[in-house]
Amino acid sequence: MGIRLGDNQYGKAEVRLVHIDRRTDVHRIKDVNVTSQLRGDLEEVHTVGDNGTCLPTDTQKNTVYAKAREWGGVGAVEDFALRLARHFVDEHDYVSGARQEIEEYSWDRIATSEGPHDHSFVRSGAETRTTVVTKEGGREWVVSGFTGLTVLKSTGSEFHGYPKTRYTTLQETTDRILATDVTARWRYAGTSHDFDKAYASIRALCLEAFANTHSLALQQTLFQMGTAVLEAHPEVAEIRFSMPNKHHFLVDLSPFGLDNPNEVFFAADRPYGRIEAVVERDDAPEPGDAWKSVPAFL
Amino acid sequence: MGIRLGDNQYGKAEVRLVHIDRRTDVHRIKDVNVTSQLRGDLEEVHTVGDNGTCLPTDTQKNTVYAKAREWGGVGAVEDFALRLARHFVDEHDYVSGARQEIEEYSWDRIATSEGPHDHSFVRSGAETRTTVVTKEGGREWVVSGFTGLTVLKSTGSEFHGYPKTRYTTLQETTDRILATDVTARWRYAGTSHDFDKAYASIRALCLEAFANTHSLALQQTLFQMGTAVLEAHPEVAEIRFSMPNKHHFLVDLSPFGLDNPNEVFFAADRPYGRIEAVVERDDAPEPGDAWKSVPAFL
Amino acid sequence: MGIRLGDNQYGKAEVRLVHIDRRTDVHRIKDVNVTSQLRGDLEEVHTVGDNGTCLPTDTQKNTVYAKAREWGGVGAVEDFALRLARHFVDEHDYVSGARQEIEEYSWDRIATSEGPHDHSFVRSGAETRTTVVTKEGGREWVVSGFTGLTVLKSTGSEFHGYPKTRYTTLQETTDRILATDVTARWRYAGTSHDFDKAYASIRALCLEAFANTHSLALQQTLFQMGTAVLEAHPEVAEIRFSMPNKHHFLVDLSPFGLDNPNEVFFAADRPYGRIEAVVERDDAPEPGDAWKSVPAFL
Amino acid sequence: MGIRLGDNQYGKAEVRLVHIDRRTDVHRIKDVNVTSQLRGDLEEVHTVGDNGTCLPTDTQKNTVYAKAREWGGVGAVEDFALRLARHFVDEHDYVSGARQEIEEYSWDRIATSEGPHDHSFVRSGAETRTTVVTKEGGREWVVSGFTGLTVLKSTGSEFHGYPKTRYTTLQETTDRILATDVTARWRYAGTSHDFDKAYASIRALCLEAFANTHSLALQQTLFQMGTAVLEAHPEVAEIRFSMPNKHHFLVDLSPFGLDNPNEVFFAADRPYGRIEAVVERDDAPEPGDAWKSVPAFL
Repeated sequence: MGIRLGDNQYGKAEVRLVHIDRRTDVHRIKDVNVTSQLRGDLEEVHTVGDNGTCLPTDTQKNTVYAKAREWGGVGAVEDFALRLARHFVDEHDYVSGARQEIEEYSWDRIATSEGPHDHSFVRSGAETRTTVVTKEGGREWVVSGFTGLTVLKSTGSEFHGYPKTRYTTLQETTDRILATDVTARWRYAGTSHDFDKAYASIRALCLEAFANTHSLALQQTLFQMGTAVLEAHPEVAEIRFSMPNKHHFLVDLSPFGLDNPNEVFFAADRPYGRIEAVVERDDAPEPGDAWKSVPAFL
Repeated sequence: MGIRLGDNQYGKAEVRLVHIDRRTDVHRIKDVNVTSQLRGDLEEVHTVGDNGTCLPTDTQKNTVYAKAREWGGVGAVEDFALRLARHFVDEHDYVSGARQEIEEYSWDRIATSEGPHDHSFVRSGAETRTTVVTKEGGREWVVSGFTGLTVLKSTGSEFHGYPKTRYTTLQETTDRILATDVTARWRYAGTSHDFDKAYASIRALCLEAFANTHSLALQQTLFQMGTAVLEAHPEVAEIRFSMPNKHHFLVDLSPFGLDNPNEVFFAADRPYGRIEAVVERDDAPEPGDAWKSVPAFL
Repeated sequence: MGIRLGDNQYGKAEVRLVHIDRRTDVHRIKDVNVTSQLRGDLEEVHTVGDNGTCLPTDTQKNTVYAKAREWGGVGAVEDFALRLARHFVDEHDYVSGARQEIEEYSWDRIATSEGPHDHSFVRSGAETRTTVVTKEGGREWVVSGFTGLTVLKSTGSEFHGYPKTRYTTLQETTDRILATDVTARWRYAGTSHDFDKAYASIRALCLEAFANTHSLALQQTLFQMGTAVLEAHPEVAEIRFSMPNKHHFLVDLSPFGLDNPNEVFFAADRPYGRIEAVVERDDAPEPGDAWKSVPAFL
Repeated sequence: MGIRLGDNQYGKAEVRLVHIDRRTDVHRIKDVNVTSQLRGDLEEVHTVGDNGTCLPTDTQKNTVYAKAREWGGVGAVEDFALRLARHFVDEHDYVSGARQEIEEYSWDRIATSEGPHDHSFVRSGAETRTTVVTKEGGREWVVSGFTGLTVLKSTGSEFHGYPKTRYTTLQETTDRILATDVTARWRYAGTSHDFDKAYASIRALCLEAFANTHSLALQQTLFQMGTAVLEAHPEVAEIRFSMPNKHHFLVDLSPFGLDNPNEVFFAADRPYGRIEAVVERDDAPEPGDAWKSVPAFL
């Protein structure tokens, strides 16, 4: 029997970078959280503590900040992640692969009586835009998405027709609240796209499909959301969703002599449903390492 | 020496209530988190476990849900909290006082190609609206506010002229990022106001004052925000702020042969500054018990 | 009508300090989180942005680190907070008061086959030790405590005899699970005590009273805990508790043809009960400013 | 081009179950958080909302509670998860696979003057024991582990010999603090083991290897920990670690005329290093689906 090192990677997590574009008095802000990880010939780092092939995580952090200056800003997070990955792999012969993950937080200009302010901002929305770029030698993959998009339908959701067993107590319903926090991740075919434009469109398509689907199951809503994205975005090979079913229970007010015609709900915390699925093209390119060490829901 | 019971209160915390107004097909949603606490003659509950004067926290929870139905909805959270407090104190002779705290989460309609959707919503904003209503016998107080309003100025903030001591290493600056998460709580004089309208105005005034103040200290910005609110809202007796100074440190890129003209920043987590102050009218009515057991920052 | 500055304070929050005592090869670790806040003549900082009386929060942070070295370590957190408060007030004529809050995290030595390790540690326990020292001119107060001490009794807890109203649905019980996360804060009379010894004793007394009280109400358990502390510690003037009633609901298994003799429980998140009370001596010294801006539960 | 459903699963997340073993007056407590997910022929649930093959998540939740009673308790979480998986797959012909994840929280008896208490407990430790059991048809895999085991060495850690580039600013060191929160997951070969005994041993081996390794890199420490586990546990096929390098920076006290001989540190939050690796046997059985949808760190 022998014991050996298997897959491994290392880097600096959560490098918080804010870049201010001051080229005009109307400043623009980019607020991101970068996690850089590298792969390579790291056998002896692990077995004998020889760091000769270990580009320090501190250097990775410095690189993120320096490149934001050298490159005149961040741009689309996918492009920034791709450039970082290429820098790390191409410039260091002991680095064979890179994983660059970025979260982005959005800001709006503060509204004043004289219009949107030039350099004052307020955090907007609750969702976080995400990307994970993976590069192994000459191959590159881009997986983008969002987390924390919280949506709710106050009607237009049913649930019935499921199998009944000895452990069934759930009542069928033709009118319930449907609520979820959408986490979506989609894999791009190729690495040259207008990522900002695609992001805005995909987010809007997901919202609209959620709103317009008369839902017989959260799975059905999910599939409609994925289909809407794939139909409109040929550059997207597949999209994965993880969606909690955030239960809103109708409160039984009958002990108090009151009816409750779908008006008063208890929003529960735990447990919650969890619905996860991939919607994909049947002719999509192979995923390769795109999903390797992406927080998995499948 | 004797040991005795001092101040005390008890109740049900974080009753999550979602109310759907279905009077028309264009539904309206109210999403709140209610914490009900009562005070009274509870000596024997503590000393001998006699619960004869202890309205169960479970009953308080039931009451929150039932009243949302009986009263046809929630309305302004201040009004709902006042009505709950009056119910508990007026209907139970063993209850002498009540503290009703409510948090409210905001939702927008989902935008579709056919306009805002009738019954589909997306969580908006990051801030939470708050109120704490206190009632002791016949006296009532309303303290409202918000938490989690995150703002940032990319310029227009200076900090200098402070005392230097042997422990000083900070450099003076005439141009820095100023960022904070505003927590504000204001005390109303009286209990009959258009609370929803006041809330929207006070929030907007705080944002605009943050944006328009050329800041020499976060304290100065805070005071301008408070002054703007008090000048426009005679029904507000005082306003309290707790504002972290969320440091954004200019990254030193000189080791890499790069300048950094206020473009690339490290957004730090801890430690952070903490600035807290009351801005008040010199003729404000006495606070009484308004701030008793309100999460205190002063 | 005039608008004016009311109470205020400012400082550096959450200065994370780890001190290693290396005087022998058997290292000792002290892991604390210090929040320093100062009060004084800060009118013009707020009104015109004149920082001439504003000892920067950065300097406060530096002072915390420097004093940990100058004083040869931290010692009991109460003593460290007192010394910091005295330093800030006594050494700067524009500082009239100080509030120094410290959280402490505990560590155990890692057990090895050769005994407890000299310089390797594992975080122990879940609770956090706390202190808040307040100094106004020549007066000083010490409030200490803990948060996050989670306890549970699987029997020995009843709840009945409470008033029934039209909103009552709760069933009486003579055997339930009682669980809570204890937050306790006690005020010392005077400032010269063996704080470490007192802390260990008070924590143990709270645990033992929780365990040994046959509970008819969580309030009764709370009062027994407070009484045990005050009886054994004459240096404690009062003790305050905030204790959630963390509901563990017996699951109804009868639909599945099963009984459930207090064996299978659902541990709920929200809502939860919240029980808060002061247990005090009738001859305790006046609290003065001890509780000013201590996170309040009363 | 066609759009199709890819991999998918669904279930009930975070079913909080507390089981009290009352067979003797010395009660025993088991406190777990179960996430049940099922796979099967779910095409039409997604495409047309036909729930005929969708065992409701509510039923999965009921099953967890009912089985805890039927089976007379929980036992080792791995065994409970295996039995649940087998129940779901074997008893429902439309269910082809199951993923059962359990977290377990530990409790100690409260110490009293009369010894450990019969039925009163205090939460112990900070780490959470975990298991993920996956079953696809007749094949089964068990991956167990822990999260949140926080450890620190105050000396015995070096870092030097790494490549220097134009973005290097880090100084080499022969004495630093090494601190991390260990997340470990190991894959068992087979499904019949004394899981409780193995867990206690593996946890202890990880701690001891952390303590006893003179570290030249966190990677080296990780590899030593993995090797210790594999050498002692032939039933473990591989072990994966994700370990943040929680930086403790030596504070520069020289501006204040003070030295700092590795005594005073700033414990930083972000960014942090992240070290991830697999340590495996070269003759280990193939992993199959063991790691499918396990929160991935590789």
